Amino acid sequence: MAKKTKSTSDKPNRSTKDRKTLGSIRDLADTVVQSAGRGREPYVDIPSRSLSNVRFNQSKRIIEMGSGTNRRELFNLAQARSYMQTLLVASGCKQLIDQGKTTSIRGLFYLLKHTIEGTSEETFDTQNECDPVIEDIEVSLDSMREELHLYAKNAGAMVGPITLVDSGDTIDCSRMGSGGYSIPSIVEQDIVQFKKNTAKFILHVEKDTVWRRFNEDKFWRKHNCILTHGGGQPPRGVRRMLHRLHHELKLPVYCLLDNDPWGYYIYSVIKQGSINLAYESRRMAIPDARFLGLRSLDYGRCQLSPSVQIKLNEQDIKRARQIAQYTWFVNKKPWQKEIELMLKNGFKLEVEALISKDISYVTEQYVPARLKEGEFLD
Amino acid sequence: MAKKTKSTSDKPNRSTKDRKTLGSIRDLADTVVQSAGRGREPYVDIPSRSLSNVRFNQSKRIIEMGSGTNRRELFNLAQARSYMQTLLVASGCKQLIDQGKTTSIRGLFYLLKHTIEGTSEETFDTQNECDPVIEDIEVSLDSMREELHLYAKNAGAMVGPITLVDSGDTIDCSRMGSGGYSIPSIVEQDIVQFKKNTAKFILHVEKDTVWRRFNEDKFWRKHNCILTHGGGQPPRGVRRMLHRLHHELKLPVYCLLDNDPWGYYIYSVIKQGSINLAYESRRMAIPDARFLGLRSLDYGRCQLSPSVQIKLNEQDIKRARQIAQYTWFVNKKPWQKEIELMLKNGFKLEVEALISKDISYVTEQYVPARLKEGEFLD
Repeated sequence: MAKKTKSTSDKPNRSTKDRKTLGSIRDLADTVVQSAGRGREPYVDIPSRSLSNVRFNQSKRIIEMGSGTNRRELFNLAQARSYMQTLLVASGCKQLIDQGKTTSIRGLFYLLKHTIEGTSEETFDTQNECDPVIEDIEVSLDSMREELHLYAKNAGAMVGPITLVDSGDTIDCSRMGSGGYSIPSIVEQDIVQFKKNTAKFILHVEKDTVWRRFNEDKFWRKHNCILTHGGGQPPRGVRRMLHRLHHELKLPVYCLLDNDPWGYYIYSVIKQGSINLAYESRRMAIPDARFLGLRSLDYGRCQLSPSVQIKLNEQDIKRARQIAQYTWFVNKKPWQKEIELMLKNGFKLEVEALISKDISYVTEQYVPARLKEGEFLD
Repeated sequence: MAKKTKSTSDKPNRSTKDRKTLGSIRDLADTVVQSAGRGREPYVDIPSRSLSNVRFNQSKRIIEMGSGTNRRELFNLAQARSYMQTLLVASGCKQLIDQGKTTSIRGLFYLLKHTIEGTSEETFDTQNECDPVIEDIEVSLDSMREELHLYAKNAGAMVGPITLVDSGDTIDCSRMGSGGYSIPSIVEQDIVQFKKNTAKFILHVEKDTVWRRFNEDKFWRKHNCILTHGGGQPPRGVRRMLHRLHHELKLPVYCLLDNDPWGYYIYSVIKQGSINLAYESRRMAIPDARFLGLRSLDYGRCQLSPSVQIKLNEQDIKRARQIAQYTWFVNKKPWQKEIELMLKNGFKLEVEALISKDISYVTEQYVPARLKEGEFLD
């Protein structure tokens, strides 16, 4: 493996954010050097990402990590490998920042994978061994994956009366063709800057196929909003984009998701953050997001045909009960009623089910009615 | 199920393509009416999409359908259901075209799913029952899915010195930010028109993560090309876009795919078409596409580390042998050698493996070297 790290002087215009991240990586390395210098056993303390170290912050209304950590020691046979991997990932990210380049987690894996000299041992056997270490580094350095110059798969699109600058290109999101503006996986301020916005709110829909119906019907023009989708569970880039639009431009976020446990869960992640990425909640969660639909009562309210019912399976029922017990749902009566009614119905509903009324029922009737009456689940 | 078909007079500016498709749907319906009028049993003949009805056209170098058909009769207990579904899908597509709207295959399923009056029978039980009927209609009417106003999931992006018009919006693909222009699933002439192009060729890469490396390194600017990806196996929209760019703008297409059976197969589909969509080959296949890499010999040629090898599993080996036997590969010595060498190597290589040399090795060394020597697999 040839590491061709350019000297830092090649990148005089490094951003403040990059300088901060490099500083954190250096601090991590320094603790190791200091331990060694003092003849002590080197270690790193990694904040614990287990369920027991996650709590719901009632006042901020987001999922947060607790203060529990796990120590990883070099001179401990059970920990030496993960210790080595931790420092290796940190050095890989340093290399990326030094070079001013980004890569995928797959790319980082290949960048770092090699046979350890004088052994037949690989630094990483599989991607699965590398990914959790990347998350360890994120949380240890208090740096988002994006700040480590790593990106996830691109997914999600947006359209609406907003102009932004992405990597120096001015993007008018109202003139991006039928596919819309593809939301990149890194949308931090140094990549994406908002320029001009006249939208009044954001409608976030679950799937691209639903998004497309709204775009084709020019819903965003009629209702003066930004229309986004995340291709199912929205990836980090989409969540971060929603977060920035919501906080920097003060735009309310309404979510249109399937009436099923998966839809509830997506809403929960957008609103409070996820257990696994609890350390990123404060930069991604949108506690004021609102659930517009589909609701369990929509089957009756919209007089849908029995043909559109999808029977709940055992997994759905189990998952729905689990979600109802989440701290952030358990004290909310309307949500308890919502989930109970779905279980009582015995079926779930996809947003596409509204097509059985009319192909544009969802854009011309359903969502406008919900917005007008202003009754959302919180 | 309330079908609100607007009268056709609502859409005076219907495109030539839509008029043609409507004509085909009417012809289909007319044969039924005529049979009934003559007191004969109504039927429809559906071109057979089985492997036995597919052949490789040596002179056109694409996979084509033969002339075999299957008859579907109304008064045949085994066929009545699929007969009904066939006409139902045709009428659903007519409704979409009449309304000037498009939907997903999921949307069409919901549009058409209902309990048949006076019975407890559903028109379709599941999406799986609807999808093949959609393909039946495509091939019967000789209309692409897009012409039936149906779209697949969006996937794929492009960037480069080309300006096009998409749904009335002018899109400069060199100024679309870090995510590029999101290739829509419908790219027919009435939606997408090419305006100005200075690119000399197309580099198509398999995955968005690889595409992103090329985009970040501004490869397309340095080499004056259009850069596309299809998110793995390219969806119809991407294949159709490549086809149009290749044929209308005379741009050569070079493919950079993984060195594994899946990469070979993707190439084969781009070049000759697929068995399942054989009826669309002539509008999608690009017989002059070239395979740039990764090659099995790249492991040695690029002096890659053993760490990047991914051992072939049984499935890979079986698939590789199958692909080697395809009519369109079997007589090509270089391809036989290519596949043999992969089997002999005993491992596959992802494009990302080149990162182990240097993060930009693929954009600065590998692809420029292949383009310079001009040696591609055909």
